[in-house]
Amino acid sequence: MTPGPTNVPPRIMRAMIKPMIHHRGPEFQELYKSILDNAKYLFQTKYDVVVISSSGTGGIECAVSNIIQGVKKIIVPVGGIFGQRLSKTISVMGGKPIEIPVDWKRAVTIDMIEDAIKKEKDAKAVAVIYNETSTGAKIKCMREIGELCNERDLLFIVDAISILGGDHLPVDDWYIDICIAGSQKCLMTPPGLSLLSISDNAWSFIEKAENSFYFNLKSCRKYKEKCQTPFTPAIPLYYALDEALKIIIEERLENVISRHKVCAKASYSAIGKMGLTPFPEKEFRSNTVLAINNPPKVNDTTLRELLRKKYNIVIAGGQGKLKGSIFRIGMMGKIGPPEVLQTISSLNMALSELGLDLKFDDSLSVAREILQKRLYYQYFLI
Amino acid sequence: MTPGPTNVPPRIMRAMIKPMIHHRGPEFQELYKSILDNAKYLFQTKYDVVVISSSGTGGIECAVSNIIQGVKKIIVPVGGIFGQRLSKTISVMGGKPIEIPVDWKRAVTIDMIEDAIKKEKDAKAVAVIYNETSTGAKIKCMREIGELCNERDLLFIVDAISILGGDHLPVDDWYIDICIAGSQKCLMTPPGLSLLSISDNAWSFIEKAENSFYFNLKSCRKYKEKCQTPFTPAIPLYYALDEALKIIIEERLENVISRHKVCAKASYSAIGKMGLTPFPEKEFRSNTVLAINNPPKVNDTTLRELLRKKYNIVIAGGQGKLKGSIFRIGMMGKIGPPEVLQTISSLNMALSELGLDLKFDDSLSVAREILQKRLYYQYFLI
Repeated sequence: MTPGPTNVPPRIMRAMIKPMIHHRGPEFQELYKSILDNAKYLFQTKYDVVVISSSGTGGIECAVSNIIQGVKKIIVPVGGIFGQRLSKTISVMGGKPIEIPVDWKRAVTIDMIEDAIKKEKDAKAVAVIYNETSTGAKIKCMREIGELCNERDLLFIVDAISILGGDHLPVDDWYIDICIAGSQKCLMTPPGLSLLSISDNAWSFIEKAENSFYFNLKSCRKYKEKCQTPFTPAIPLYYALDEALKIIIEERLENVISRHKVCAKASYSAIGKMGLTPFPEKEFRSNTVLAINNPPKVNDTTLRELLRKKYNIVIAGGQGKLKGSIFRIGMMGKIGPPEVLQTISSLNMALSELGLDLKFDDSLSVAREILQKRLYYQYFLI
Repeated sequence: MTPGPTNVPPRIMRAMIKPMIHHRGPEFQELYKSILDNAKYLFQTKYDVVVISSSGTGGIECAVSNIIQGVKKIIVPVGGIFGQRLSKTISVMGGKPIEIPVDWKRAVTIDMIEDAIKKEKDAKAVAVIYNETSTGAKIKCMREIGELCNERDLLFIVDAISILGGDHLPVDDWYIDICIAGSQKCLMTPPGLSLLSISDNAWSFIEKAENSFYFNLKSCRKYKEKCQTPFTPAIPLYYALDEALKIIIEERLENVISRHKVCAKASYSAIGKMGLTPFPEKEFRSNTVLAINNPPKVNDTTLRELLRKKYNIVIAGGQGKLKGSIFRIGMMGKIGPPEVLQTISSLNMALSELGLDLKFDDSLSVAREILQKRLYYQYFLI
């Protein structure tokens, strides 16, 4: 139950061990075509999607390095570790990040973006972390930012690594030019692949840029015409991603998203019942990554070790300045009543063992009630 | 039987589908420690080894981008597609490649390297493709180049993607500063990982450089201290690589290399018996990638399609200017009598079907004789 990698369903595991194929042969072409067609449904886009063999961080570097020569200045809200990383990546690639400092308990607002655009008249792009994995806070005004970028002719780049497939994200409707996702979060695939959607508008900037040989979107597009990747792809992970996208289509995207939302709601309610508080302010709370303040007198390492060793549940601690003050639960991919109820009950039992005065039944029954009443539930994951 | 990806033995396939783990937990630390310890044996080095989640091309970009700020000018022999790519990568990363043009039927000689060093007094590195996958030619004077680089204080960078684990390559003995390998060749692991060994000498250049956020060797070293990777690793491929390295240790590296050599010798002899000729001149012929001239009147696409559809054997065609004039057989990783004899007999039958006057028994028996007489053979791959 970490904020990635997430659990991989057996169907996807089995897909990985199909025979090795040559990446220039017809079998891979068929596989990659299937992935790209289905990824368009996932991204809700009519534009190009490409898949590269790297982690999500590589996907971010790919997006930035391919536009930076044409864009130079990028407005980037920073409200957590991944905002910091994005800003750093822009610098390393030779660009100039215009940081908007954001309270880590909140996410950027449309006013803050508008102010930054007014001040930095030569900025040509806005890049945001839709869902800040390190704080569990998500941006609420994505559509507004997209509309503003569209009006002002700014590229809109979105790190959606820990949210695509787990929450609402219509890429074209929101005028997103480059949207980056990772395989190992809501897509319940092992880590190692990054997916990028690229609008026609984004391509006009990419044409000018050549900052990397490996992360070269022009090469990706050229090879995509024959359903290939420019370099040898991580084939088992492509098999896995293909199966994952097929599962999402079977369940239907709206049901997948609704399942994530209900599971998050059930978990937040149960956690509240235990007397714990989420780290982000209420309106910014993520449906895919739950960041919870450590209860007083409980050491989060002790809690996580107890959960791991006795209850077989792995959650994550805080990162950067939040180290030691929060713990994080991933609510992504293969989640439903078994995962939610098991996590809630284990957390309850572990905290009781560590001396908190918790009533076991209360938190579990509030979660159960929400799941029972609100979950359209059908498992395609076996 | 392509020059990568190569066949993945069942033991390695099974290793891939172990449960997903968190990359910051103790299970991954143990896994990565095991890989790094065993990789030192494979590279025959006492220095650092790191594994990154990208194809071999990403590994090359990683090596180049981390030293380029301190090195600038790099001498690079170009005798095939991968030499061209290496040179291009150096340019893209902001360096200046000093190309030594090499006949594609041959590999660079020590005299050519010496001349280039004399002419380019401010070059600070030599980067070579030990085994040129596009031509099937390998460098014969690796030790001499290493000694020369060591004498003249030049960094020695080696692309060993299609050869490490399949031929002699003692990294420290040959004064190699950065050696890059790929998972999907002689290491019989699926594609998606790149391995790099880095000498202390190389580190002194890397300290100065920061050209990429994803391919950052300083971050790799920092995280390596706690047996982690800086970014989420492609976990199933790490499981697979770990199993592959264990298999290599069980068989012993010298036996693995000898098995590759005997299989190559058997194949070259059988191919000669069929009246076919290898593309490279005799002294430069690779033991891991066999490039064969298309026989007159045989279309290589037709030949490859026939092999694939009727005999279930996949080989590769030529690349770049060799497209249509050669075909290539990978002799890497999971190879032994079954693979060699099956490939030889299928090639013989397919070419007969395409009108060549071939005696079936002759080529098969010459291969069989060599395998029988010279192969220390014990399969650890089940």
